[in-house]
Amino acid sequence: MKTQRRMIRLGAFLVAPGYHIGAWRHPHAHADGGLDFGHYRDLVQTAERGKFDMVFLSDGLGVRTPYRDEEELSHWGRSVQFEPLTLLSALAVSTERIGLAATASTTYHEPFNIARQFASLDHLSAGRSGWNVVTSVTDAEARNFNRQTQLDHASRYHRAREFMEVVTGLWDSWEDDAFLYDKEAGRFFDPDKLHILKHQGQHFSVHGPLNLSRAPQGHPVIIQAGASADGQDFAAQWAEVVFTAHQRLDQAQAFYRSVKEQVVEHGRDPEQVKIMPGVFPVIGRTRAEAEDKYAVLQDLVDPVVGLGLLTWLLGDVDVSGYPLDGPLPELPTTEGSISRQQLLYEKARSEGLTIRELYHSVSGGRGHRIVMGTPESIADELEEWFVNGGADGFNVMPPLLPDGLDEFVGLVIPELQRRGLFRTEYEGTTLREHLGLNRPRGAGQRP
Amino acid sequence: MKTQRRMIRLGAFLVAPGYHIGAWRHPHAHADGGLDFGHYRDLVQTAERGKFDMVFLSDGLGVRTPYRDEEELSHWGRSVQFEPLTLLSALAVSTERIGLAATASTTYHEPFNIARQFASLDHLSAGRSGWNVVTSVTDAEARNFNRQTQLDHASRYHRAREFMEVVTGLWDSWEDDAFLYDKEAGRFFDPDKLHILKHQGQHFSVHGPLNLSRAPQGHPVIIQAGASADGQDFAAQWAEVVFTAHQRLDQAQAFYRSVKEQVVEHGRDPEQVKIMPGVFPVIGRTRAEAEDKYAVLQDLVDPVVGLGLLTWLLGDVDVSGYPLDGPLPELPTTEGSISRQQLLYEKARSEGLTIRELYHSVSGGRGHRIVMGTPESIADELEEWFVNGGADGFNVMPPLLPDGLDEFVGLVIPELQRRGLFRTEYEGTTLREHLGLNRPRGAGQRP
Ligand SMILES: Cc1cc2nc3c(=O)[nH]c(=O)nc-3n(C[C@H](O)[C@H](O)[C@H](O)COP(=O)(O)O)c2cc1C
Ligand SMILES: Cc1cc2nc3c(=O)[nH]c(=O)nc-3n(C[C@H](O)[C@H](O)[C@H](O)COP(=O)(O)O)c2cc1C
Repeated sequence: MKTQRRMIRLGAFLVAPGYHIGAWRHPHAHADGGLDFGHYRDLVQTAERGKFDMVFLSDGLGVRTPYRDEEELSHWGRSVQFEPLTLLSALAVSTERIGLAATASTTYHEPFNIARQFASLDHLSAGRSGWNVVTSVTDAEARNFNRQTQLDHASRYHRAREFMEVVTGLWDSWEDDAFLYDKEAGRFFDPDKLHILKHQGQHFSVHGPLNLSRAPQGHPVIIQAGASADGQDFAAQWAEVVFTAHQRLDQAQAFYRSVKEQVVEHGRDPEQVKIMPGVFPVIGRTRAEAEDKYAVLQDLVDPVVGLGLLTWLLGDVDVSGYPLDGPLPELPTTEGSISRQQLLYEKARSEGLTIRELYHSVSGGRGHRIVMGTPESIADELEEWFVNGGADGFNVMPPLLPDGLDEFVGLVIPELQRRGLFRTEYEGTTLREHLGLNRPRGAGQRP
Repeated sequence: MKTQRRMIRLGAFLVAPGYHIGAWRHPHAHADGGLDFGHYRDLVQTAERGKFDMVFLSDGLGVRTPYRDEEELSHWGRSVQFEPLTLLSALAVSTERIGLAATASTTYHEPFNIARQFASLDHLSAGRSGWNVVTSVTDAEARNFNRQTQLDHASRYHRAREFMEVVTGLWDSWEDDAFLYDKEAGRFFDPDKLHILKHQGQHFSVHGPLNLSRAPQGHPVIIQAGASADGQDFAAQWAEVVFTAHQRLDQAQAFYRSVKEQVVEHGRDPEQVKIMPGVFPVIGRTRAEAEDKYAVLQDLVDPVVGLGLLTWLLGDVDVSGYPLDGPLPELPTTEGSISRQQLLYEKARSEGLTIRELYHSVSGGRGHRIVMGTPESIADELEEWFVNGGADGFNVMPPLLPDGLDEFVGLVIPELQRRGLFRTEYEGTTLREHLGLNRPRGAGQRP
């Protein structure tokens, strides 16, 4: 009997043409990559060659970048993208092993439709789907769904909790072995193994059953990225992977401890929740080369875009009226992401940054940790957080695609493998198996 | 200059394990085909080899077959299926030329999400997507979306009309050549070519823009299958393909004329609307062989299933309380499909059918025209309707898959090709080109 060594989990956060806000202007960027399937297929196949646990697609239900007019928006390079569930379905049949996770909002969908499309993706991919559950954070999205402003923060999470009950209940409509396909007897399934939901709640009334058999993974893997008190409590109850953003190890450790404690309070096993902070890797043969690469990208940030980005990260709080080279003013409370607003506010105060400096500081990592240097130094930085209770793995956000992913797979992953910190081959076939997550028991198997 | 000969349009209506209600019990059936991607990929590649204009996936938002308890439902072979948009996205990258049409309901979705997923599918497939617009017809679906019974018929169409305005408006958010990708100047798009919808209506308020560039086809092809007065008027305004069900040529001709006239009244070109009745082909080397094949399938229909099917086709009107061998009673008006209820009611009256005979008569074609015989006789029957103003093409519903599709592609299509009635090679690359439909002008190109 050998004890399984704890391994780093890796997600590839893919957004064409790269996570850095100026990336699309880089000579190597596929500026039209957001709607180029071949580009995404190549990226995901690269990530699969690198043995990533999963690729991850963020999402917004509309153009989320703030703009005062069309002219201002035209400086942004991110207004159009594939819709994630359709894209992942196409990628599912273009890959073999890598997990496929998409973001979808509980605020602007019906639970039946979400349960159904993710179950369908799990079947198409033979058990490789994941759902990043978000409540959405911008008024721009609300305006595409019959509202002028978004629902308040607490109500969004209230709806999200009931949404999860419905979706997981629908996923358990049929037991794993419900289907008999008995042609002779004319019995398609065993009626004792069908569990009709009949949910009647505050936000939803959903009868069921779901019209798909139970997913290969039982449930797609549940990912969550809200960091407010409400968001953490939601994660502690529902999430199996938690994405998060931290700059310093002590912050990451505090968050890690806090979430795992809350997981225990919810009666769950803390090992069944993987905490994965984002990292924004800038990779060079030398530290200087990495710094040069970063400087090239920073130079590509248009001031219009920098200010707009800041407005967005502050939760639709427009600071363009204030002097660029003055301090960040006191901010009104946002109905958007409270955690993200606080993070930025604290950063500006503690480091004494002006508005301009603040937007430059987030143009790259956007609040996520920047790891810049050689493959060895980056592996050191990842290992440090991993072995010291700051992370179970990382959501890797390449600044520029495909270059940043090619470099990570070609240089950083081999270094992690040499250290015995990352797999050299997939052992399982499902995303749950990659991540070391249990398969949820179905309705009929409950104790 | 050669004049283009008018060609038959063909859709392949694919539902595993076949359209006949007893098909799943057939020895050749893939009883688990509804969630077997390889099965669907093979079917669609067969249809593509046959040069079909498109494959078509019907849909229901839940288990639509009526059942009193789990035991009754367990006799049906159709309770689980892939969700169509995820399935078609995977099929898009597994095929080259064939059109890909999915059904989606205007009653249980938000227009932003539908506009987005179909645009995404159109990009993934390089211009091969189609949307069958339905308003849904069962209470079973309503119960999955916070209702006990469905919205009444008129309100569903009222919502559907505004839904179409929003969706097509979102599809025209960006002009075809809006994107500049000008890295030097930092201009992603030309701001004059962005048209923000700002829709404020009775059912929807949707700001826009859509976060995808204009679809390769401009708009996915709009298909419609409602046949009530309201449904026909909707089709006349919006549809480019009309699916329908008729038993006799004179009925088909009357419908054809009526819809085309209404199309003209809406100021549209009648050639830009293709009328495609469903046909249920039973193919043999001789008439007797075809009849035998049909009899084998009919023998596989469980009485529980036959009665349930009738209840469903009558729009949730349960007739199981009446003697099986007596006549169909007077029926209450349904809030489901009025046209379908009337069709069946008239059939039972005019042919003097008992309830049992009526359900047997629809177990195969379910109201669609059955064409049974040799490839030549079937080609004759299709040609007759095509040349006599009954149809622009047909929606082919193989009783049993893959056999029925293999036979149609192997035997009937070559016969149609010999007669010069069907293409021998794709000429265009998009579904619009296959069907001879114009590409809609974008917002900026409107006169
Ligand atoms: C690392 C990270 C990634 C996120 N990705 C998305 C996303 O792709 N789409 C989205 O709508 N929200 C995204 N969010 C927002 C959250 O998931 C959450 O809905 C929002 O932050 C509000 O919750 P909070 O106040 O608890 O943070 C992200 C948040 C974090 C911290
Ligand atoms: C040939 C045909 C195929 C149809 N396919 C579907 C389907 O896949 N899903 C669905 O919800 N409704 C389907 N319908 C229902 C209609 O599209 C429409 O929503 C319904 O018939 C109500 O409108 P009506 O009363 O105008 O017919 C179909 C109807 C016909 C005649």
